[in-house]
Amino acid sequence: MQADIGLIGLAVMGQNLVLNMIDHGYTVAVYNRTVEKVDKFVAMAQRGEKLIGCHSIEELVRSLKKPRIILLMVKSGKPVDDFINKLVPHLEPDDIIIDGGNSHFSDTIRRTQYLEKKGLRFIGTGISGGEEGARYGPSIMPGGSTSAWLVVKDIFQNIAAKVNGTPCCEWIGPNGAGHFVKTIHNGIEYAVMQAISETYHIMHDLLDMTADEMSNVFNDWNQDKLQSYLIEITRDILKVKDEDGTPLVEKILDTAGQKGTGKWTAQSALDLGTPGALLATAVFQRYISARKETRVTASEMFSEQASKSTHNNLKTEKNTFLKDLKDALYATVLLAYDQGFILLHEASKEYNWNLNLATIATIWRGGCIIRAQFLDKIKEAYNNDPNLQHIIFDPYFQSEITASISALRRVASKILTFGIPIPAMTEALAYFDSLTTARLPANLIQAQRDYFGSHTYERIDKPRGQFFHTEWKKLAQ
Amino acid sequence: MQADIGLIGLAVMGQNLVLNMIDHGYTVAVYNRTVEKVDKFVAMAQRGEKLIGCHSIEELVRSLKKPRIILLMVKSGKPVDDFINKLVPHLEPDDIIIDGGNSHFSDTIRRTQYLEKKGLRFIGTGISGGEEGARYGPSIMPGGSTSAWLVVKDIFQNIAAKVNGTPCCEWIGPNGAGHFVKTIHNGIEYAVMQAISETYHIMHDLLDMTADEMSNVFNDWNQDKLQSYLIEITRDILKVKDEDGTPLVEKILDTAGQKGTGKWTAQSALDLGTPGALLATAVFQRYISARKETRVTASEMFSEQASKSTHNNLKTEKNTFLKDLKDALYATVLLAYDQGFILLHEASKEYNWNLNLATIATIWRGGCIIRAQFLDKIKEAYNNDPNLQHIIFDPYFQSEITASISALRRVASKILTFGIPIPAMTEALAYFDSLTTARLPANLIQAQRDYFGSHTYERIDKPRGQFFHTEWKKLAQ
Repeated sequence: MQADIGLIGLAVMGQNLVLNMIDHGYTVAVYNRTVEKVDKFVAMAQRGEKLIGCHSIEELVRSLKKPRIILLMVKSGKPVDDFINKLVPHLEPDDIIIDGGNSHFSDTIRRTQYLEKKGLRFIGTGISGGEEGARYGPSIMPGGSTSAWLVVKDIFQNIAAKVNGTPCCEWIGPNGAGHFVKTIHNGIEYAVMQAISETYHIMHDLLDMTADEMSNVFNDWNQDKLQSYLIEITRDILKVKDEDGTPLVEKILDTAGQKGTGKWTAQSALDLGTPGALLATAVFQRYISARKETRVTASEMFSEQASKSTHNNLKTEKNTFLKDLKDALYATVLLAYDQGFILLHEASKEYNWNLNLATIATIWRGGCIIRAQFLDKIKEAYNNDPNLQHIIFDPYFQSEITASISALRRVASKILTFGIPIPAMTEALAYFDSLTTARLPANLIQAQRDYFGSHTYERIDKPRGQFFHTEWKKLAQ
Repeated sequence: MQADIGLIGLAVMGQNLVLNMIDHGYTVAVYNRTVEKVDKFVAMAQRGEKLIGCHSIEELVRSLKKPRIILLMVKSGKPVDDFINKLVPHLEPDDIIIDGGNSHFSDTIRRTQYLEKKGLRFIGTGISGGEEGARYGPSIMPGGSTSAWLVVKDIFQNIAAKVNGTPCCEWIGPNGAGHFVKTIHNGIEYAVMQAISETYHIMHDLLDMTADEMSNVFNDWNQDKLQSYLIEITRDILKVKDEDGTPLVEKILDTAGQKGTGKWTAQSALDLGTPGALLATAVFQRYISARKETRVTASEMFSEQASKSTHNNLKTEKNTFLKDLKDALYATVLLAYDQGFILLHEASKEYNWNLNLATIATIWRGGCIIRAQFLDKIKEAYNNDPNLQHIIFDPYFQSEITASISALRRVASKILTFGIPIPAMTEALAYFDSLTTARLPANLIQAQRDYFGSHTYERIDKPRGQFFHTEWKKLAQ
């Protein structure tokens, strides 16, 4: 019994976490279902006694200090349950199983209950940052059996990214809290990526910018309020050339994949009754992108619609327009975060997680895919007011949105005329305009529901909770 | 044993279905959990021997011809299971339980299996048309145990609405097919109602039209291509005055309720990978409407944003603009149907329902809430090509969309400048523009995913199914 932690699942994320842990002085025992991978990895890594290759679950369990900590880095879904079932017979009370994949939080709730009933402990943790994050410092969002936190805290916080010395890892909450927070992280990620891709689409198709020009603009934008990992990698991507010297990004097929977390975010918003159209539209846009052949067919059937040739004005005003475009992207991104944090706020109440939103903003500042400079301000906003309803109600963001929303309005209004789809931007604007409209036309919807289904309605001149029904058809005669 | 059918649940929908069945010559036995309601209803209805009030489940079952047909008109969820469990001990092989509520189709799949295992039969049926439909002819969408169809067919088709003599009821398919189709019906309903409410919002806030003026316009619009029940009732609603002589609709609180089917539609689109942002945004918009106090607060915090005072131009061009607005609404509505039918198409494949989309369009032509003149054309479109991928690919709708999409573009582009939220219209436009764009910017998204997660990508110059990975960071240096 010498290893501090065991890890099962030696795909790239698993391997990189192992190396990260060894770098921080931990001894790690590893196991993989295809056992050859264990030997290969141990030989390749050359980490001596710090890395113990195991050829069976039993061997892995035997090599661990107690209470044992076993981190699963396997595909979410059935493989997680399978390994849990294989591990349980070999474990002792208080041992800890950790699921580091992108599991649905309801599975994590179930697994926590299941293992706690057996006297064991369970952690479901989000780990964000991709391969590089796993290797040199991810953002880590653990939740589950509360007493397990103190056991794993040092390892987790040591391998996590640091921002000004603060680790990007804190305890999120009981049972499914960690995986839920990671899911919403990814939901925001989808929306931000969609917004950036719309910006790129406009630059590419309407401003006729070269990849190098675009890369320079994203580089500039990465210097101040938009400073973030996703802007940074967009800058990098646009620099990369294919073998023939042309921009590689232009050779990539325009069909975006997805792995479920964006979908879960949208479905959770629907379940929890929070405004999430901006987060959802990013997922739906990936689905449309996947229907490539249909789009090619449709583009021929409706070719008369595309008025992309009439954009000369835009080109002559390029610099002014780019300034607006930057603000439009910034407003869209802030509003995506706003929808994400409302979801966290409501889920915390619904599932009794008691989430600390300032903490979540803190651990998203580094390591993860959606890290961005303004997360520091979100942290401050929730520190100032832990019950803040909307990020954009915080004075700092109120003024940021006020300063950028008219640019989004100008950009959206203009771009719609050219046939370039910008669903993230228009949903962001619709969200802002809806939220800031004291009187929406839902009164008509309530009248319609009362007309055909006697669903009743409330009145503006009566107290809430009093319900009225009208015989509309009769009275309209 | 004298009744043709038994009905449990004497809320308005249940009562009206009973009267409808009696009008068509059937003898109906009724039962309600609160038994007084049975006596009250029987006394009130005065239908003599045609209406048999029962004070217990046993009595209800005893009064029915064999095979027994028992229609549940109770709240969806647990009450349905409770009544099924109460009924089962009293039933004999081949008896039929029907759930006429808005159940989730997955529950209907489960219940069909459960009852068929017991030698019984189950039907989950959508019934649309509200109270009036139930009374004088709803649209009925039954699915479940296939052999049960011939037993209930006559009753169902007799009480259903008729369009040119064709009943608005046909067998939809096995297990959950009927309830799924009803769910999508409602999902389309949400989107159409949202689109109409946006139109009303524009007329009210930007064109300063009176309720009577608006009613007249909706009346005009109801004469041709937009002819539909929801336009018709909007016309009626706008005519109705409150006791003080002012339009009643203006007294209604702007917080729209919802009962789950719209949400399920959006969640199904997310699960099945179909483009459904227009359907989803209508649900999210109801959620935002419900956050009335937040909106009032936000409208004060961001008051400088609302530029609704600058709409004088719109008023001077009112008639031209109204013509555009009509086309914009029409295009939005067609695109909502398009997203609904894609969902049906994909669900049919996923669940092996073998849905006949022409039949579904046929039975939606009358009785139901989304009945509309153009459903006749949708029926024809699927008759001409049962594998039609998109409604708007049918020649008739291709030309309808072509004729109206630029109006939607003009309206959306203009309205965004005034701060009036029009998410249904902008999502419809984004959907059309995405679908008709051969090359979307998802290539950048794929590059980003490959950058941070090695998710790989396909290339436009290589066959599909070949995946590539690039060391973006290294190459960008």
